[in-house]
Amino acid sequence: MINIAICGASGRMGHFIADIIASREDCRTICGIDKFGEKYADFDIVREVSEMTEKPDVIIDFSNPATLDSLLDYCKTNAVALVIGTTGYSKEEIEKINTAAEQIPIFFTFNMSLGINLLTDLAKRAAAILGGQFDIEIVEKHHNQKLDAPSGTAIMLANAINEELDNKYTYVYDRHSVRAKRTKTEIGMHAIRGGTIVGTHEIIFAGRDEVITLKHEAHSRQVFAVGSVNAACYLAGKSAGMYTMNDLIKEM
Amino acid sequence: MINIAICGASGRMGHFIADIIASREDCRTICGIDKFGEKYADFDIVREVSEMTEKPDVIIDFSNPATLDSLLDYCKTNAVALVIGTTGYSKEEIEKINTAAEQIPIFFTFNMSLGINLLTDLAKRAAAILGGQFDIEIVEKHHNQKLDAPSGTAIMLANAINEELDNKYTYVYDRHSVRAKRTKTEIGMHAIRGGTIVGTHEIIFAGRDEVITLKHEAHSRQVFAVGSVNAACYLAGKSAGMYTMNDLIKEM
Amino acid sequence: MINIAICGASGRMGHFIADIIASREDCRTICGIDKFGEKYADFDIVREVSEMTEKPDVIIDFSNPATLDSLLDYCKTNAVALVIGTTGYSKEEIEKINTAAEQIPIFFTFNMSLGINLLTDLAKRAAAILGGQFDIEIVEKHHNQKLDAPSGTAIMLANAINEELDNKYTYVYDRHSVRAKRTKTEIGMHAIRGGTIVGTHEIIFAGRDEVITLKHEAHSRQVFAVGSVNAACYLAGKSAGMYTMNDLIKEM
Amino acid sequence: MINIAICGASGRMGHFIADIIASREDCRTICGIDKFGEKYADFDIVREVSEMTEKPDVIIDFSNPATLDSLLDYCKTNAVALVIGTTGYSKEEIEKINTAAEQIPIFFTFNMSLGINLLTDLAKRAAAILGGQFDIEIVEKHHNQKLDAPSGTAIMLANAINEELDNKYTYVYDRHSVRAKRTKTEIGMHAIRGGTIVGTHEIIFAGRDEVITLKHEAHSRQVFAVGSVNAACYLAGKSAGMYTMNDLIKEM
Repeated sequence: MINIAICGASGRMGHFIADIIASREDCRTICGIDKFGEKYADFDIVREVSEMTEKPDVIIDFSNPATLDSLLDYCKTNAVALVIGTTGYSKEEIEKINTAAEQIPIFFTFNMSLGINLLTDLAKRAAAILGGQFDIEIVEKHHNQKLDAPSGTAIMLANAINEELDNKYTYVYDRHSVRAKRTKTEIGMHAIRGGTIVGTHEIIFAGRDEVITLKHEAHSRQVFAVGSVNAACYLAGKSAGMYTMNDLIKEM
Repeated sequence: MINIAICGASGRMGHFIADIIASREDCRTICGIDKFGEKYADFDIVREVSEMTEKPDVIIDFSNPATLDSLLDYCKTNAVALVIGTTGYSKEEIEKINTAAEQIPIFFTFNMSLGINLLTDLAKRAAAILGGQFDIEIVEKHHNQKLDAPSGTAIMLANAINEELDNKYTYVYDRHSVRAKRTKTEIGMHAIRGGTIVGTHEIIFAGRDEVITLKHEAHSRQVFAVGSVNAACYLAGKSAGMYTMNDLIKEM
Repeated sequence: MINIAICGASGRMGHFIADIIASREDCRTICGIDKFGEKYADFDIVREVSEMTEKPDVIIDFSNPATLDSLLDYCKTNAVALVIGTTGYSKEEIEKINTAAEQIPIFFTFNMSLGINLLTDLAKRAAAILGGQFDIEIVEKHHNQKLDAPSGTAIMLANAINEELDNKYTYVYDRHSVRAKRTKTEIGMHAIRGGTIVGTHEIIFAGRDEVITLKHEAHSRQVFAVGSVNAACYLAGKSAGMYTMNDLIKEM
Repeated sequence: MINIAICGASGRMGHFIADIIASREDCRTICGIDKFGEKYADFDIVREVSEMTEKPDVIIDFSNPATLDSLLDYCKTNAVALVIGTTGYSKEEIEKINTAAEQIPIFFTFNMSLGINLLTDLAKRAAAILGGQFDIEIVEKHHNQKLDAPSGTAIMLANAINEELDNKYTYVYDRHSVRAKRTKTEIGMHAIRGGTIVGTHEIIFAGRDEVITLKHEAHSRQVFAVGSVNAACYLAGKSAGMYTMNDLIKEM
């Protein structure tokens, strides 16, 4: 039984994570940490990580960058593993995370969804095989409130594919402005926006009379919670170091 | 039994049309017209429409604008219906077609595929219902040799939808250049290019927690041949006038 | 401003409905009815419909068949319109609803989602045009806890299409047991089950080298709440009678 | 420059293969073999493999099982590599092929399309990662003349996935006959039939709030020709042994 503490326990992601842990038999939540306090279901919530009375095996953090220092201090002092789902860190803060990973196991990844990480893996594999002969296009769909386009995940996918193909590809976002054939070394990027779509990413490999499509659909933000709990169970008992979803996938 | 003559009989589309007529029981090819001559399967091919020895009920034309004058002359003189699948006419030539339609039945449409024309019809219907509440996006896919983007058919679809919505919508081709939310009155247009894809058109209506997608896939240029034979059988016996695929659909 | 009361206000659907009404400007919730009581956000909740102190224009009911009698009595006595989203009525109860509709406007439909009802409409239209020439298949996807297959909505779609085609079609659920070609007058029904998929319905019309696909995806049960609020605003001020989503769509 | 001979050169697949070789710069057709003779474009066609005047590096065979003996004899005697795309061999004939592979390099695979073989590879990878947590469903689409359901390729995909999961899964073809939840260890198999669809295969992994879909669409039988030419270029210069598309993919 793996003992988990949730940092950011009173937020929406914190609630999701608690629910998912409760539905599994290999782990349990022993404590929540949240500066807003609040009692949630089956465990206590403290305001600071230093106030925890029992030592967890792993802390899952979905709070905000401001908690980083106290978290790293606690984890290093008590030899506790740390799964970081918080985003928006500065370069300096990322440096701190890297340094801490010399002492404790840390799981830190761009996108906590298992599915997106597997999709990246499969897309790289497909690109390595089909690269020269098939044209590659990425289509992503998100809700109409999203500010950025294409999505960060679409760019991550394109970069992963491009790396596999010696970074020879450029990204094309608009074809209507030029009357010309597609080149061999471009990746078309398409950002569809509408309604409340949570997030769909699709990579199209189009060749001579055949098309391969790899698609991931997220239907709620809960997928990130699921991913973080998987990460926590994976990380428990690991030696110090920096781990990503790719490591988790490779070991599966 | 409807008797059909094929103008442009020796070309690729001419062959498709002959095959499709041969597979049906309600019509037959009695003659081909092609300046390149050539004998094809079960009927004779003459070089000029005036050389035909038997009068057809309908002529299907997939040749080129240069044959227009002789075709219209023949059809008007002999009271023969005309299905025009040729594209690239000048305004002056289109005027001639319109004038001729006062004397004979002429079928003239942007896209001969029954499917695309039905899709247009359904998209207008959906737009009328969902317009205010759902966001609209159009995605089309074509082969990597296509020069224009978006496709003419995608523009036709967008225009048909826009007309239904009082032409309040603008078309957006690139979202990566601006960091901003989608507006209520834009239609996103996405041109995917790859491999040998013949042509796919998809209209997405994305609302609150639900998405409706209307999609048409053409798997060969034969769909245009099928459409033209349907048009010919529809046109036979009609009174003088200009007909489009929409008329055909309405009567089905 | 349309005044709405929600029957079943303390349930999950009741909460959804209240949220949606709150987000609109043309209506407001003036009261909730729920035998479990509970105070919710911005309005009072009474235990019985008869306890309401203010008369609403419309009641939206997502409770259970046991409340039917008191609801119909109240609405008939006070000339209040009624939107019924509750399911599971007996034939006798449905008879009562029909009888009440002679005195008051009642909106009663199989599936409250605007999208599914529009899909049905479009599918009928497409079937009428493509029926003889295209093969029809229906694919639905739902979560792995669903007991019935195919879904009630898939059957409703098939029946609507079949009606349009003179009820000549039979439904085929399994092709692996017989080695034979597809017949012209069958509709293939496919029930995909997996994960937490809320509900996707897809109608495929496959013809000679072209395929038309009409698809609806529900991403949460909220779509039924949205549909019921639309129905309520539509119903307010209507004369007595039985109304369905089809009527609402036709008037849009 | 790899020299290729095409056995079955006068058939439809033979023509496709010749076209594809002609479009590449790393190989050329030096001879065709076909008992029906016929002169094709740029090379001679002999009636028996023994009549070839120039020794090729590789023979691509898309003829029929009757030519097997003479082909194997010629290849063994002359140390020529052999790509076999012909199907319908008896067990005895397959045994002969295996024996011959001790002396010469032979490429023999169920499905010559690179895409389907890559799809199989990706599906196994995904199944290994997601197996326990995600539900797996396979959907295939083919034209309305196909006799068998599900397709051989769908079964191959299911078997490949099942093998990866310790063969614990059973296949379910019909859900409408039983009112019950999906089990954890079933793969739903769905055979959609309609129009002239060449062949689409889709593997769905549905988990908690996320779905991954891997899809392959073949738009013409030419994909098998492309695959066989890739196989020939891969096989040229290899040592004796039995090779499959998986070996080719692994080396890419």
